[in-house]
Amino acid sequence: MTTESPTLDLTCELIRRRSVTPFDDGCQQLMIERLEALGFCVVRLPFGDVENFWAVHGKNGPTLCFAGHTDVVPTGPENDWQRPPFEPKIESGILYGRGAADMKGSLAAMITSVERFLADHQDHRGQIAFLITSDEEGIAVDGTVKVVEWLREQNAIPEWCIVGEPSSSKQVGDVVKNGRRGSLGAELTVKGIQGHVAYPHLADNPIHRIAPALAELAAESWDNGNDFFPATSFQVSNIQGGTGATNVIPGKVHVVFNFRFSTEVTAEQLRERTGAILDKHNLDYDIQWHLSGQPFLTAEGELVEATVASIREVTGLSTELSTAGGTSDGRFIAPFGTQVVELGPVNATIHKVDECASVADIDQLSIIYQRILEKLLG
Amino acid sequence: MTTESPTLDLTCELIRRRSVTPFDDGCQQLMIERLEALGFCVVRLPFGDVENFWAVHGKNGPTLCFAGHTDVVPTGPENDWQRPPFEPKIESGILYGRGAADMKGSLAAMITSVERFLADHQDHRGQIAFLITSDEEGIAVDGTVKVVEWLREQNAIPEWCIVGEPSSSKQVGDVVKNGRRGSLGAELTVKGIQGHVAYPHLADNPIHRIAPALAELAAESWDNGNDFFPATSFQVSNIQGGTGATNVIPGKVHVVFNFRFSTEVTAEQLRERTGAILDKHNLDYDIQWHLSGQPFLTAEGELVEATVASIREVTGLSTELSTAGGTSDGRFIAPFGTQVVELGPVNATIHKVDECASVADIDQLSIIYQRILEKLLG
Repeated sequence: MTTESPTLDLTCELIRRRSVTPFDDGCQQLMIERLEALGFCVVRLPFGDVENFWAVHGKNGPTLCFAGHTDVVPTGPENDWQRPPFEPKIESGILYGRGAADMKGSLAAMITSVERFLADHQDHRGQIAFLITSDEEGIAVDGTVKVVEWLREQNAIPEWCIVGEPSSSKQVGDVVKNGRRGSLGAELTVKGIQGHVAYPHLADNPIHRIAPALAELAAESWDNGNDFFPATSFQVSNIQGGTGATNVIPGKVHVVFNFRFSTEVTAEQLRERTGAILDKHNLDYDIQWHLSGQPFLTAEGELVEATVASIREVTGLSTELSTAGGTSDGRFIAPFGTQVVELGPVNATIHKVDECASVADIDQLSIIYQRILEKLLG
Repeated sequence: MTTESPTLDLTCELIRRRSVTPFDDGCQQLMIERLEALGFCVVRLPFGDVENFWAVHGKNGPTLCFAGHTDVVPTGPENDWQRPPFEPKIESGILYGRGAADMKGSLAAMITSVERFLADHQDHRGQIAFLITSDEEGIAVDGTVKVVEWLREQNAIPEWCIVGEPSSSKQVGDVVKNGRRGSLGAELTVKGIQGHVAYPHLADNPIHRIAPALAELAAESWDNGNDFFPATSFQVSNIQGGTGATNVIPGKVHVVFNFRFSTEVTAEQLRERTGAILDKHNLDYDIQWHLSGQPFLTAEGELVEATVASIREVTGLSTELSTAGGTSDGRFIAPFGTQVVELGPVNATIHKVDECASVADIDQLSIIYQRILEKLLG
């Protein structure tokens, strides 16, 4: 199947490859062939099962990097899909298939935008780069984070980065992510003394001890957010205590909770303030913290300006800059001073059955990317 | 094996019968033969798998009833026992075996005390009765509670009841139970709205909602108890919420709790006060209540006086009257106005491996029971 749209054709070729995280299944080879044909210098950077590559075009000056992932989330039972997830299908202007929105459409749009840009700007200023991984949907330890380490050693951290994550809400470009909240998780175990409910004076109920502390943590105002971030949020995801027996006071209770935090607090401050509340309630506890992402923000700068202007010129939309939602690989790139925006298709169907994207959106996305290239490197 | 002690011999014969709840395994037949030999009129009252009997001696007047159970709790892995649980063994004055303390020693002491009493008081005043079940350690629905219903129909509710539960702490008679707290259980489900931790505004965390309510329930002073009862106690035995996923706000949290309550509050008051606290916190909840026992108390009267005096005369101990500990079949008898005391061996090893009782205690228990018979019916 080929169409009038090179971006759509490439998207379909990528969807046909069953690149369920962390496997790439040849997607990157396809992209590399297209980039090498354009004169890109490509470095493959595999780590473990994970395929990654870095590609660059141009000799020196500021670098605009397109970042993305070829892996997709599992399909779940394929019978639950109206259409086979790895057989792209277009129905009344909608492309169906796993990865159509997250994010093979974006990868194709990146490639075709560069192809058109270079046709007119063989001697563009600065450098165009690609940072592509096959482990964004998985544990993300052998993907972007490792490539960024390598870039630091090469002194090649880009000035600007466009991540192809599906940022849009109703139409491509209506929302751009210019940052993300941080994510800090914890596993808390509060200890008491097990005993029989008939002899409470011989026991110490950890559920009773933790209840007022949890109430205080849930009611705490951690910050008020700022112009770009909502207020930091504390959420308990799991609580478990008791043997199942109705006459036994348990010896322990386990609680798992998570902070999604703004740039108004640090992970360290959250750990300290949480510990202070637990200590205030005289709890005997163990706590394990997991920092899965620092918050990042590109409040302003050439990249945001070029992105907002390009979207307006191509679509007429005035973009909303947002930091809502989960984490992305932008968290690994931004800490080194790179300006980062996430711009991709509508995210309504991502990680769901019958994932889809508008063909018109994918084509417009390629034109927007091209317009950004022209503004920054043209 | 026979010894100098008929009480010890009968205890051993009962222990040899593997009467794991609700099975009697011939224990009651053994008791019935001894009682019929004494001229008792015996009525067997089996319900389902459960063996029960009622036996009475004497024509009219006040009735002193010995109440007990022939069933024992399971042994757990018999290898965990130093000595086979159903092969009674005496070592340096201690009788080992499942039921030695709870409560085959008491059953034997009841029988032999009556045998000696009747030898001297063939024409005693009032009536001597036995209310014996094989379902006290189990769910206790076809045992004493059913026999008591039958006694009500017969208009034969006893004035006085001695339950053979192991009430003693260090030496037989040092503690007598003259009542028990009530037990009221509940299963509470608090509902919220499930969602992703990254989008808390779209969810409603039931763990956050229940925490302050639990804190208030745990801190509540339900009553101050009284001369006979400790303050009513609220204990959470189990709490469970969450899918295991660390990024999902759960839709529900389940809590199981129990009140052990004094005669200063009613079950109805506890239900109402709990509901008021839950409502105050605007919780969306379901709650299932289980009343497993009303509190009962025999503050004073001939039975308590006779028991305390008999213990002092036989052992020199001044007894402590207590209502501590778990429930017993006394809860089924006391509500009909019967004076109830629980008097039995030391309870340190009950429901454990290598259950045991002092041979001297079992013999003294028989003499104490006899002395009570003499005071009330002699």
